[in-house]
Amino acid sequence: MKNFECYNPTRVFFGRGETDRVGQLCVQFGRRVLLVYGSGSIKKNGLYDRVMHALRSQNLEVLELTGVQPNPRIDKVREGVRICKEQGVEVILAVGGGSVLDSAKIIAIGAHYHGDPWDFFVDESTIPGKKTPLVTVLTLAATGSEMNHNAVVSNDETQEKLAVVNPAIFPDVSILDPENTYTVPRDQTVNGIADIMAHVFEQYFQPVPETPLQDRFAEGIMTTVIEYTPRVLAHPEDYDARATIMWCGTLALNHLLECGGEGDWATHRIEHELSAFYDIPHGAGLAIVFPQWMRYVVDAIPHKFAQFAERVWQIERNGKTDREMALQAIERTKNWFSEIGAPVSLREVGIGTERLEVMAERATQKGPLGSVKKLFKEDVLEILKMCL
Amino acid sequence: MKNFECYNPTRVFFGRGETDRVGQLCVQFGRRVLLVYGSGSIKKNGLYDRVMHALRSQNLEVLELTGVQPNPRIDKVREGVRICKEQGVEVILAVGGGSVLDSAKIIAIGAHYHGDPWDFFVDESTIPGKKTPLVTVLTLAATGSEMNHNAVVSNDETQEKLAVVNPAIFPDVSILDPENTYTVPRDQTVNGIADIMAHVFEQYFQPVPETPLQDRFAEGIMTTVIEYTPRVLAHPEDYDARATIMWCGTLALNHLLECGGEGDWATHRIEHELSAFYDIPHGAGLAIVFPQWMRYVVDAIPHKFAQFAERVWQIERNGKTDREMALQAIERTKNWFSEIGAPVSLREVGIGTERLEVMAERATQKGPLGSVKKLFKEDVLEILKMCL
Repeated sequence: MKNFECYNPTRVFFGRGETDRVGQLCVQFGRRVLLVYGSGSIKKNGLYDRVMHALRSQNLEVLELTGVQPNPRIDKVREGVRICKEQGVEVILAVGGGSVLDSAKIIAIGAHYHGDPWDFFVDESTIPGKKTPLVTVLTLAATGSEMNHNAVVSNDETQEKLAVVNPAIFPDVSILDPENTYTVPRDQTVNGIADIMAHVFEQYFQPVPETPLQDRFAEGIMTTVIEYTPRVLAHPEDYDARATIMWCGTLALNHLLECGGEGDWATHRIEHELSAFYDIPHGAGLAIVFPQWMRYVVDAIPHKFAQFAERVWQIERNGKTDREMALQAIERTKNWFSEIGAPVSLREVGIGTERLEVMAERATQKGPLGSVKKLFKEDVLEILKMCL
Repeated sequence: MKNFECYNPTRVFFGRGETDRVGQLCVQFGRRVLLVYGSGSIKKNGLYDRVMHALRSQNLEVLELTGVQPNPRIDKVREGVRICKEQGVEVILAVGGGSVLDSAKIIAIGAHYHGDPWDFFVDESTIPGKKTPLVTVLTLAATGSEMNHNAVVSNDETQEKLAVVNPAIFPDVSILDPENTYTVPRDQTVNGIADIMAHVFEQYFQPVPETPLQDRFAEGIMTTVIEYTPRVLAHPEDYDARATIMWCGTLALNHLLECGGEGDWATHRIEHELSAFYDIPHGAGLAIVFPQWMRYVVDAIPHKFAQFAERVWQIERNGKTDREMALQAIERTKNWFSEIGAPVSLREVGIGTERLEVMAERATQKGPLGSVKKLFKEDVLEILKMCL
């Protein structure tokens, strides 16, 4: 086990009806609220009205930033920062999935920075020591953004999709009300689940030995997601199924799993190129890339893949080598993504060979990727070709 | 799954060598430090010198409160509060196990209260909104006190052992350096492990259905503790074994496991009477009471005990009923406590029938105990008799 720091100050309120707390939770920080949301699905399903009612019952003044897209853009963040500065926003309320939350996180620090918020993605030292208080209401189980210090934003001008990971951007409070995910369409539910599984893979398949409890926790999330996914797809309004997937999503990336290990984030980095160039859903890209990454790196940690085979997929030993166990588990993983309706090849999302080279180049421009096996441009290109 | 709030602002630094950070971590809060510790084992093993060196290198002024006992006493807390008030202590540094940490937590709030700190245990509303910053260096894997908002203190005058559970008493920073547990004697290591297992049991054996991820996490801790205990007993200086048990202890009671369920703390409450009256180690009392509590309540949640049998003890079904599985698992649990060297009967720790009645009376004086099955005085008495 490696040394680590574990710190997560976000306060979570989880469960049915918790949404109605949002007014009280915001008012403790101030009266002038910037409500950040996406394409308007919250207006269709009634969540917008419910939130506005809660805010108005506390006499809060509400400004709005709407139209945050999946793979959120820095332009929208800039717009939010401008509103904060011009209007003296005292608290930001993000209602949505990872894209909305990530945008709001950057707005919250951008409001206290003199320059352009894209700077944070290029040079972490520009991140200010202060942020506008941030409350979130999650509507999609996927990114874990509700309880972590990560944010990913895209820049159309530079065709870059980059991440900030910094303690300055933990939400102060997050409301996780599983009923708010009842109306998430099937494909988005699946993409969210693929993202959750990917987060666990990235912290589980790592090179540091002797992280037994972390392994058990990761296996616990994977086993639970596999068990509950059919239920949530068959019955989108099954409270306990939605609640379970939601809590799995939060714990998959609140960095608990990573304590003591050395996560390998190569797949996320590779996928970010796919969604930067082709604007495909992040979860879909992950479902395509992950099984091929696994095949490519399997010989670096065959024992770990064999453990995954035994504990998560219940594949029996029967004299098989670690490698044989591993390959069977990887095949099962790919088939599982396919069974739940996620794409498992680039062809399925309309991506051909045209830009594989430039994506491989871009993914590795700051150096090789990964901790399990260092991946250079040629390695990434090979993995992308395996994804075709 | 039930609604829940999840909040834990303690910052943990985990790993070999992290102890040397203690000076820097304290100085951020102030220059006048109250060092709280126990019987002096930290002087024998060199930890005291190491901590003092780190403090002095930051030019900190150090006052001392020494002699905190196992089952810590309110008198010692009062002494600490007096020092804080008279000397203007700016930061409290607790170096020890749960008793030292719990005492320091109460001192930290007692310093901001005009009355007697025992009041906090009798009437929670007396807890002030302010506390002196608290840094801890853990020396025993057991109570989870390093990353939670619990403190248990005994009062010799009233022969009471009571708990405060309040967000005011989270440590600000905790250093978990597994090497600081190398010199823990075998019996204390075992008592700590019994305490860790008991914490998991208390949150796992509970009545709320559909807490699948929480169950997997609890099973992960139990499985890991069972796997690593023989290693830590055979090789007290095995870093990864000590580190694993330490991290299990923290996660067993930082309240993550309890999210969404309704823990049953009856056993802890019963044990507190044993250690209040007989001053036996808390972990020893738990190892005695737990298997008997399990036998007494098994019919309320036989399916959960059967799941425990299958997943933790790998007991095979082979047509057995839940109850048969459960009873076999309870027997295995008791035998395991015995194998690792914990007592499993009151006789082994010199307790007879004399005070069973008064302990049962006292344990239930504020009402019946537990969530799995409500335990009245007669039930507690019956369980205590089963422990003989």
